[in-house]
Amino acid sequence: MTAQKANPILVVGSMAFDDLELPSGTTNDVVGGSATYSSFAASTFAPVRVVAVVGDDFPEATLESMRARSIDTEGVERAPGRTFRWAGRYDADLAGRTTLDTQLNVFATFTPKLPPAYRETPIVLLGNIHPALQLDVLEQVRAPKLVVADTMNFWIQGEPKSLAALLKRIDTLVINDEEARELSGTHNISRAAREVLRRGPRRLIIKRGEHGALLFDDHGIFAAPGFPLENVVDPTGAGDSFAGGFVGYLAGQGQLSPLAMRRAMVHATATASYCVEAVGAARVARLSRADILERVASIRALYDYGASSM
Amino acid sequence: MTAQKANPILVVGSMAFDDLELPSGTTNDVVGGSATYSSFAASTFAPVRVVAVVGDDFPEATLESMRARSIDTEGVERAPGRTFRWAGRYDADLAGRTTLDTQLNVFATFTPKLPPAYRETPIVLLGNIHPALQLDVLEQVRAPKLVVADTMNFWIQGEPKSLAALLKRIDTLVINDEEARELSGTHNISRAAREVLRRGPRRLIIKRGEHGALLFDDHGIFAAPGFPLENVVDPTGAGDSFAGGFVGYLAGQGQLSPLAMRRAMVHATATASYCVEAVGAARVARLSRADILERVASIRALYDYGASSM
Repeated sequence: MTAQKANPILVVGSMAFDDLELPSGTTNDVVGGSATYSSFAASTFAPVRVVAVVGDDFPEATLESMRARSIDTEGVERAPGRTFRWAGRYDADLAGRTTLDTQLNVFATFTPKLPPAYRETPIVLLGNIHPALQLDVLEQVRAPKLVVADTMNFWIQGEPKSLAALLKRIDTLVINDEEARELSGTHNISRAAREVLRRGPRRLIIKRGEHGALLFDDHGIFAAPGFPLENVVDPTGAGDSFAGGFVGYLAGQGQLSPLAMRRAMVHATATASYCVEAVGAARVARLSRADILERVASIRALYDYGASSM
Repeated sequence: MTAQKANPILVVGSMAFDDLELPSGTTNDVVGGSATYSSFAASTFAPVRVVAVVGDDFPEATLESMRARSIDTEGVERAPGRTFRWAGRYDADLAGRTTLDTQLNVFATFTPKLPPAYRETPIVLLGNIHPALQLDVLEQVRAPKLVVADTMNFWIQGEPKSLAALLKRIDTLVINDEEARELSGTHNISRAAREVLRRGPRRLIIKRGEHGALLFDDHGIFAAPGFPLENVVDPTGAGDSFAGGFVGYLAGQGQLSPLAMRRAMVHATATASYCVEAVGAARVARLSRADILERVASIRALYDYGASSM
């Protein structure tokens, strides 16, 4: 472990209630949203500043549990009305899901305003929201050292211009394989990556669910394996937890070298693997560094083939 | 590299003509079959003895090119009639395929008879044929040190009893993820693996196409990443080449330790990655050790995250 200098992280995204139809049963009003998952995940490693909007109905207890993990919630605006809601049904094998309902509610008129103290944050995670809002947040941060953004098919299809502008402003894009194929118009994942990188970001992470994640940068390609879990309960928020773990590790290490990025991929995998073991953010909200170290060791074992003597 | 003692490998399987409808075009009468791919792949590392049947129409030139790579073809029976034929159409993205036609021809009445010189072969690869034929071959080999078998959905569904008997007699089963799910009746891949291992083999390899392969044994789980190729031409024979590369590496190393198995997974991945870059067995038929070393280095780079300083 190298010298520790935990940089703060700015996380913007949604805070939400999710209604989840899971093979194990249906649970309503689960506290979720990309900012919630990413903030809890990142806070295992470094202090977090969160920007989001919630309605009258959002539990103060959740914000308190965030503050207890050194997540600054000054940037969480409480607006009159109801919190953003998402409802989804997962397939029996948890590999696919169908959106049943989306209610923007207070998110419909959200204009993120960064508290002055947030404007010097060196590491920024732009969670999956409208790319114009992501750009809007980015405009308010002074010279960040690392900007990581997530997006989804909805914006790839519906907001290509805003998204194209965003891609030119970020360091790292985090998407899943289907999104990479859609964004690039190319099926082959290596060629798709090359095309996405041509559009702006210097680094692309492609998440592949149980198959792990790939990092493409000018150092080459890195493959983080999926951790083979026997009990996957709820995949909701796994991608957000991955992104949070990724920036969290880098902020905690205080370095952004190619090898640090690769180690961050492994820590992100560890973080996401815990997330899916419980409904909602319950597990990721109480992750410890010891938990992460334990799973990182298990992931290292997946790789261990005595390479030095090969 | 440890002391080299290249053990010979016995390979049994099909030798065939394939008619391939690929996105890049249709090619007929491509020389293929599991024994062909596996023998060429394994011969990069160690001498091979092949058991198969061909018809009058099979090219002597292919058998000659096998012998030129220290593949003993004494066990290839030339029977009156036509060689086994398979016709398939691949999806545009090469991820799936449809069997259009299967003609057993001389394979319909094949009873494998091992030449006396084959009976002491220490490493046996039972390619994907009827499990009763796989067992029949196994009966004729004296105390092999390692028995690896492949199978497919067709036998899992149609010959559960023969397959159950086979599973109790082999060390290592090599199947893909769908086959593992079907054989175990379980979607979760770790649980599926546990169930398959309960039925006999001490080691299970689950191939996942572009997502790589997993090894489950009493040493834990090992994940070999898929090598991200930009030009995949023809996936036919990739699994057979993987299995051939796996046993080939082990035979070449002369050791069967858990770490050797893990290195064999990486060499198998390298072997299969070459196979898919050309139509048919063209590339795997001229693989050199230098080719393999080069790609193994590229696969190692996929893994390189400076683990020692993590």
